[in-house]
Amino acid sequence: MAGLSGSERNQLLLAAAAAMESHSSEIVIANREDCEALAPAVAAGSVAQALAHRLRTSPAGVKEMAARVRDVATLEDPLAHIIATTELDEGLVLDKVACPLGIIAVVFESRPDVVPQVASLAIKSGNGLVLKGGAEARHTNRVLVSIWHEVLAAHHPGLERAICLFEDRAGVMALLQMQREIDLVVPRGSTEFVDFVFRNSRIPVLGHGSGICHIYVDSTAEPGMACKVVLDSKTQYPAACNSVEKVLVHAEIAGRLLPELVRELEAAGVEVRGCERTRQLCGNPAIKADTEDDWSAEYGDLIVTLKVVDDLEAAMAHIDQYGSRHTECIITEDAGAAARFLDEVDAASVFHNASTRFADGFRYGLGAEIGISNSKLHARGPVGIEGLLTYKYKLRGRGQVVSDYVAGKRKFIHRKNHRAET
Amino acid sequence: MAGLSGSERNQLLLAAAAAMESHSSEIVIANREDCEALAPAVAAGSVAQALAHRLRTSPAGVKEMAARVRDVATLEDPLAHIIATTELDEGLVLDKVACPLGIIAVVFESRPDVVPQVASLAIKSGNGLVLKGGAEARHTNRVLVSIWHEVLAAHHPGLERAICLFEDRAGVMALLQMQREIDLVVPRGSTEFVDFVFRNSRIPVLGHGSGICHIYVDSTAEPGMACKVVLDSKTQYPAACNSVEKVLVHAEIAGRLLPELVRELEAAGVEVRGCERTRQLCGNPAIKADTEDDWSAEYGDLIVTLKVVDDLEAAMAHIDQYGSRHTECIITEDAGAAARFLDEVDAASVFHNASTRFADGFRYGLGAEIGISNSKLHARGPVGIEGLLTYKYKLRGRGQVVSDYVAGKRKFIHRKNHRAET
Repeated sequence: MAGLSGSERNQLLLAAAAAMESHSSEIVIANREDCEALAPAVAAGSVAQALAHRLRTSPAGVKEMAARVRDVATLEDPLAHIIATTELDEGLVLDKVACPLGIIAVVFESRPDVVPQVASLAIKSGNGLVLKGGAEARHTNRVLVSIWHEVLAAHHPGLERAICLFEDRAGVMALLQMQREIDLVVPRGSTEFVDFVFRNSRIPVLGHGSGICHIYVDSTAEPGMACKVVLDSKTQYPAACNSVEKVLVHAEIAGRLLPELVRELEAAGVEVRGCERTRQLCGNPAIKADTEDDWSAEYGDLIVTLKVVDDLEAAMAHIDQYGSRHTECIITEDAGAAARFLDEVDAASVFHNASTRFADGFRYGLGAEIGISNSKLHARGPVGIEGLLTYKYKLRGRGQVVSDYVAGKRKFIHRKNHRAET
Repeated sequence: MAGLSGSERNQLLLAAAAAMESHSSEIVIANREDCEALAPAVAAGSVAQALAHRLRTSPAGVKEMAARVRDVATLEDPLAHIIATTELDEGLVLDKVACPLGIIAVVFESRPDVVPQVASLAIKSGNGLVLKGGAEARHTNRVLVSIWHEVLAAHHPGLERAICLFEDRAGVMALLQMQREIDLVVPRGSTEFVDFVFRNSRIPVLGHGSGICHIYVDSTAEPGMACKVVLDSKTQYPAACNSVEKVLVHAEIAGRLLPELVRELEAAGVEVRGCERTRQLCGNPAIKADTEDDWSAEYGDLIVTLKVVDDLEAAMAHIDQYGSRHTECIITEDAGAAARFLDEVDAASVFHNASTRFADGFRYGLGAEIGISNSKLHARGPVGIEGLLTYKYKLRGRGQVVSDYVAGKRKFIHRKNHRAET
């Protein structure tokens, strides 16, 4: 895959998008089969309605999948990228170049649109792909992968082996032990599932366990802005990992802010919990007392816990103790407090006066999102296609040897020419 | 540490360099104590002479340590670096900025110059540092760390806690389990020791197990250049991980090249081993027959194994099977063969017509080398100070909320201004 040119890789993507559209009815029929097979379990309550909902696709869904694949084709070629060039000496030139990681494994539950999405990103970045889908999407995944296989085989016979589909649940553990063969695992699913992958593999994992995001409302915050940002961060899509779970409020503004904030949250259907000071200031019996468990909980639902803190330091100490290093936000009109918060809080995304829901690859303008990473190494926060790349050093010489430099016969010049693009 | 400005961090480095020089005699006396304590074990043969040699320092050695610390002070500030800026919308600006990883643990054997080297790199990059030195260097390490502590405490009281020294051997296992506290482990020592760290920690490790480097001499190679590069790669410093261990020779050039190459290697004191075809072509009884073990061995010594291969594909297949993804080299006058080798061989460094010994942070012009990494993620090959950094996203707004963008009231503009530097 890495041996193809950028335009050859784009041709594959466009052909696959067209093939998905022309095989749309087969995809939808296979999908109906999966949905019908799942229906009794949903009716019996042993499978969540939400999972059944994510599984379902339609002709419009297939069109959407094809459109997303064409979007990936329009991205610039990530492999045509010389990161840096250094002339070590005359005729001895070192290029640091982007290259594919090798083989990416994506382990996912239900959603069939994951197949074309990650297949297009893998092809675009020159990587091989191992897919392990959920058993509930078996028929849909098989049809989708067979369409991609046909396109690959038609354009470059043999290349269909670059995308593999596993269905066997027992195979997941075997997959997670293949550290010699697989360069990166991307788990897509519940927090528990992602944690399972982190615990059971020595292969690097791109993902995030939990998202426990805070908003700290500083003493100088504009109360209207604070309410608006908290409401959006909590209610715009509460199941998302970047939705806010806890709001910390400076004691000096708490009396003015909290009654109104709680009113707006409750009006939006949010269950409000709070510390002792919050409940006293609001005098609202609907506010449940916080427990220690609340502070480390990711609700993923219309629940929020409020706490009054004495100052910026107390807020940052709380975030350091309970945050998941995902997205943390300060609301303030004080530029100095904002700068301290953005510099000192250790998280992938640190925001000043903006909704935590902006922490997302599409909103960041990355073009495509592989996932969100809470790890500090390799890729952090919303990760675009560069998360599937590494680099190598290419040194081109004319027979130079190190002993000449050690003996002082030749000297390094180390002339750097940073180049953005070839 | 991360809260200090670049000039404050540099002042600490200059003060520490001066303090090491003014306490030079204390360092040398403590070092003599360590060397004397080790002497009986060296005499009895239970400790290698090489270890005792690496342990020893002198007034000149201390001057050299101080000079290296001053070099680090002259490097540009790695934290004053905005990697990319994207204006998501008017008044909503996203900066991707470099920041320290957090806490780095360096586990090392004997060499006392590791202390000032990694302390200076940690301070320069705003990281905290946990040092675990070898018991044999106990007194030297204690004096060195106490000098750095004094400098830190004098300039910024309390900051001396940013550098910790552990001496307890049993503490290593505890250290390797601290994945919540420690962000990166850098092991410095034997291949066995580095492998031990890789196997026993879930903290990301920056290091490399083995260095099994190949040179492939293509059919169109210039024989004089091939001999010169192989000799330098093997003999310039055979214990280094980037020295060549195996030489693959195209069958078409083998008859002309091998007898002369073997003559030069033997004249340089190298033990030559070879495949059946190599031994037939040379008719030299001194060439030992290769065994399967030879191909996966890292000799780290004046030994090399030669193999005749049928073509470029066979050479690349051999390297794929036995190489350690460290440094691989092709000698050829054929630009097409060189391009294929550099593109297709999966290694941190891929060379055309240059000694494998160039694979080194100093020679690459990185300014300072943290280590060499065989991992593909985060940092690969010779790693400079950027190996101690991660990044975070800083988003600055005026109260923007995501619901306005979802409702179509506002649109993202995603205007990118790549900036190299603030």
